[in-house]
Amino acid sequence: MNAVDPSLQAAPIADWRTYPISADLVGLDATRDSLQVTWSDGRVSPFHYQWLRDNCPCSQCVYGVTREQLLEIVDVAEELAPQRTCIDEQGHLLIDWQGGHHSRFHPGWLRAHAYDLASRDERQAQRPQPQLWGAELAEQLPRFDYQAVLEDDGTLLRWLLAVRDLGLTQLVAVPASEGVLLRLAKRISFIRESNFGVLFDVQSKADADSNAYTAFNLPLHTDLPTRELQPGLQFLHCLVNDATGGESVFVDGFAIAEALHQESPELFDILCTTLVEFRNKSRNSDYRCLAPIIALDAEGRIGEVRMANFLRGPFDAPVERMPALYRAYRRFIALTREPRFRLQRRLEAGQLWCFDNRRVMHARSEFDPASGARHFQGCYVDRDELLSRIRVLQR
Amino acid sequence: MNAVDPSLQAAPIADWRTYPISADLVGLDATRDSLQVTWSDGRVSPFHYQWLRDNCPCSQCVYGVTREQLLEIVDVAEELAPQRTCIDEQGHLLIDWQGGHHSRFHPGWLRAHAYDLASRDERQAQRPQPQLWGAELAEQLPRFDYQAVLEDDGTLLRWLLAVRDLGLTQLVAVPASEGVLLRLAKRISFIRESNFGVLFDVQSKADADSNAYTAFNLPLHTDLPTRELQPGLQFLHCLVNDATGGESVFVDGFAIAEALHQESPELFDILCTTLVEFRNKSRNSDYRCLAPIIALDAEGRIGEVRMANFLRGPFDAPVERMPALYRAYRRFIALTREPRFRLQRRLEAGQLWCFDNRRVMHARSEFDPASGARHFQGCYVDRDELLSRIRVLQR
Repeated sequence: MNAVDPSLQAAPIADWRTYPISADLVGLDATRDSLQVTWSDGRVSPFHYQWLRDNCPCSQCVYGVTREQLLEIVDVAEELAPQRTCIDEQGHLLIDWQGGHHSRFHPGWLRAHAYDLASRDERQAQRPQPQLWGAELAEQLPRFDYQAVLEDDGTLLRWLLAVRDLGLTQLVAVPASEGVLLRLAKRISFIRESNFGVLFDVQSKADADSNAYTAFNLPLHTDLPTRELQPGLQFLHCLVNDATGGESVFVDGFAIAEALHQESPELFDILCTTLVEFRNKSRNSDYRCLAPIIALDAEGRIGEVRMANFLRGPFDAPVERMPALYRAYRRFIALTREPRFRLQRRLEAGQLWCFDNRRVMHARSEFDPASGARHFQGCYVDRDELLSRIRVLQR
Repeated sequence: MNAVDPSLQAAPIADWRTYPISADLVGLDATRDSLQVTWSDGRVSPFHYQWLRDNCPCSQCVYGVTREQLLEIVDVAEELAPQRTCIDEQGHLLIDWQGGHHSRFHPGWLRAHAYDLASRDERQAQRPQPQLWGAELAEQLPRFDYQAVLEDDGTLLRWLLAVRDLGLTQLVAVPASEGVLLRLAKRISFIRESNFGVLFDVQSKADADSNAYTAFNLPLHTDLPTRELQPGLQFLHCLVNDATGGESVFVDGFAIAEALHQESPELFDILCTTLVEFRNKSRNSDYRCLAPIIALDAEGRIGEVRMANFLRGPFDAPVERMPALYRAYRRFIALTREPRFRLQRRLEAGQLWCFDNRRVMHARSEFDPASGARHFQGCYVDRDELLSRIRVLQR
């Protein structure tokens, strides 16, 4: 690398985020392998030298255009230590490294990434939590105006936060014409295609390749449990609904899982640890996925529900586990049928559901295709796109 | 449900698969909650009554068009037992249930789904295993002719099996024109879109939103570790490569992970259990994913590698873990640089790489954009599509 004027070299590369200064740096204490930083509110945060050097924001270490790292820490000595550290007049941390590199850290950025116990607990506590619901959500169903969602970023953000935290929302005053979902999904990002297409048409078909495309009662399920990653958000847009029957039913799968956990930790644990195969097959495809019905996240919280009885393969578990597995499965399904969990509503033309397909299970009651037309159009968008759009809107 | 003639009702609904009969049913022994089946080769398989009733293939329980289940087991009594069981003249298992339902099971199907220990072990042993490789793969790189892949199902299958088991393949005699990947991907199924588009163009760009779109050396990485599900297969199609530099480098991430495991189970374990944040951010998006660098599958085997130093956020781990985390990370990267693991080759116009992006890490050496044009086109296809196509081709 060329020699760079140290003051320029140490100019931090801005992230797209901003880092407000909630506390000032007031003290530095160098130990063998780390710098103990004291903040104006009394918190002490150790930062290892490897970590500090790894996160140097200078223009030699980070490419300014992409804001991506050029340095690989393995190219720096493992025993590297500072020659000098100080807090400069702007309150930034300055480090002159042995060997000549210079780093300068913004105190807001440093505080936001501190990994002492208090800082980690604080970040953990700020993470959004799902708000569990039951039948009572029918009284306060989050509904948003389609045109406002398209035109107003504030409305868009409120809608997306409701999808993230409640998992079930409705849009109203939607044009009842095909392809509207293409335009709506663009407000978030792009559509997740599947073997059923970019958009899928939910209609009764003679050559159905899924029970979804019949007029049968369709029990509570998540879509595409047959895939390693179930689609995150599901959109169901009603174009016409003149048939008798065919009501939409929703339950909060996280609330059901939590109820099972309260009632019987043993049965809950069986659904978390038994791999179940879900299958979707046609002349031209053969999808299979082996995964638990309830998946816990890395912190042990309920992170995902995966369920579609009509796509489930035969249980494959040790003989001695099979009776308890059936008890757990039966109890889970029985809970989804309890009125206290169920929200039932008929979707009319010009309305659409948007829900978290990895949490909220949906069903359709039987309808009579001879009584009138019924045509829903659907698509998926992944959680990654939802969370990315929320972060950008919140910048 | 309407009354159905029992002989019709018990006619099994064919799956798209076939179930060869490797052993005959020779004995039935009814216990309180299960039927112990004895096979002509001496194996004994218990089947619980709940399991058998759940898997009844009759046309009341399974819809013939979609081959999906209509029955929900919770609608059957938990203490259900057979009134009569027998092996019929075709060697099928017949069950008359208390209450009047009749089930008939094909012995090949039953054997294929038996869950006694021997049957489960047998299925486990038949699962495909990744074949680990190092630099020596350069001598026997699996190469396939583009036209043969398009026209011949046998070649297509051999190619896809190489992708599944080795994770790195090359296609040759590919037209060096844009959009060829659209046609090729259709031989498998559909393309997985990302925030970089359906197809992405790898070229040096002034306004790069990823270091991939610069002329820099790009260290070994997987693509889109910033997403919950990293794309399964990556295609890189060379349209023109007249620039100096810019060689492709590949390592088998599973072989690296296994080498680390052999060398230091402690450091291996740290990379399996520490969540690392990967980030990709632009004016219009902000992706973040928290996941381990090495992910084990449900059976504790190495299932996925996730790594891109230039997309990694600052480590966030307990203070006491940080020094070991840096040791593990440094060692992992150092291993990827060892010549014994590295396959380096220049891709020429009319060639393309197809590799398992969740296993094989790829790199590009620095190139000189002033020395000539360099244009690669890429896309992704998920593992679900790969495995589905292989199963259909193997029917």
